[in-house]
Amino acid sequence: MSEPIDVAVFDIIETVFSLEPVRRAITTCGLDGRDLETWFAFGLRDAFALDVTHRAKPFPDILADALDELLAVRRVGANQAERDAVLGAFAQMPAQTGAGECFDMLRDSGIRIVALSNGPAERTRSLLESADLDTHVSDILSVEAVGRFKPHESVYRLAFEATGAAPAAHCMIACHAWDLNGAKRAGMQTAFVQRGQHYPSVMEPSDMAGDELVDVARLIVERQG
Amino acid sequence: MSEPIDVAVFDIIETVFSLEPVRRAITTCGLDGRDLETWFAFGLRDAFALDVTHRAKPFPDILADALDELLAVRRVGANQAERDAVLGAFAQMPAQTGAGECFDMLRDSGIRIVALSNGPAERTRSLLESADLDTHVSDILSVEAVGRFKPHESVYRLAFEATGAAPAAHCMIACHAWDLNGAKRAGMQTAFVQRGQHYPSVMEPSDMAGDELVDVARLIVERQG
Repeated sequence: MSEPIDVAVFDIIETVFSLEPVRRAITTCGLDGRDLETWFAFGLRDAFALDVTHRAKPFPDILADALDELLAVRRVGANQAERDAVLGAFAQMPAQTGAGECFDMLRDSGIRIVALSNGPAERTRSLLESADLDTHVSDILSVEAVGRFKPHESVYRLAFEATGAAPAAHCMIACHAWDLNGAKRAGMQTAFVQRGQHYPSVMEPSDMAGDELVDVARLIVERQG
Repeated sequence: MSEPIDVAVFDIIETVFSLEPVRRAITTCGLDGRDLETWFAFGLRDAFALDVTHRAKPFPDILADALDELLAVRRVGANQAERDAVLGAFAQMPAQTGAGECFDMLRDSGIRIVALSNGPAERTRSLLESADLDTHVSDILSVEAVGRFKPHESVYRLAFEATGAAPAAHCMIACHAWDLNGAKRAGMQTAFVQRGQHYPSVMEPSDMAGDELVDVARLIVERQG
């Protein structure tokens, strides 16, 4: 028997909000839409490399540099306005399918909802407000508070400090295995939002997996008993 | 005046050996050649994420999982033989243009040459032998010895322990800014092999930069005085 879940901790970028506007934006400066994954992986790779060397920088700055790297790799020129438009698209991410229903189900079951992002807290707040999801969320937490990135343990501890609940009473919900691997190592339960993706065997396995946010919400509510 | 360089420490994958056979191999299983960068970034992202959580795995295993992730993202099917062929292409990487001349220049100037890779030591040895570069290299060092990945400081220390020279008498040579950032933080001098790439401003700047390996060798020999 696993412990009941009192707190659902959501990854924000890609898990709750869709990167599709960013994909469209990169095509306007001559990149291929498929390079969204390349760019985001460049950015995360560099964020984690900086974390390992205790030299955290704001994630938007890292992504701006990663965009310049991608443009150089693809030998695509882009002016400042085009680059700004691409970076600005992160502010226009819509909620993923079923996000509202997922949050409603958890709230109705008395589960506290926390947002825990590698992005800035203000950006997360603004995205949640645009999607009318802000009233569901008790705490909006950002890596900015500790100067490390997920998957470093100190980031997950922000959630434990905010809620006062035991680590194992928290469930981290993400569509990124590296995030769930870190959460698991920090003592949390974990739920993978699959969306047809592969979960790497080198990472700590997730406790639950569902196709979409609503499937994961259902599993969490069931586990609550 | 910067300190004279007694030891040239080379990153191996991509810096000294070309990933182009791997690029060709991924097209044979239905991926686009441009996804070489995507795949390698997935692998490094996951290697660093595992490092942050003190859960190192062999880099080839991480890359195998990252290949499966890429195939799922691109909705491309591949059988085991095709996947094995792609992973096997890492053993067939030829030396980059000017690698031999670069190693000759450094050796003729009395500079000790060390290989320091996130890949297995045996793989590095075999690549160096195939390119007739093994006799130039005094030490073949791998992250396997410490169970961390570059850019974690403990990996660079392997070089200091092998040579007995001061950190600042070592120059790390790489075409990856995240590697040079780590080396700089560990007290080394650094040289970027540019090949038209963008050096991210979020990373510690490199001390030297040259277009190709021979340009970097020239700068190092000049600095030796």
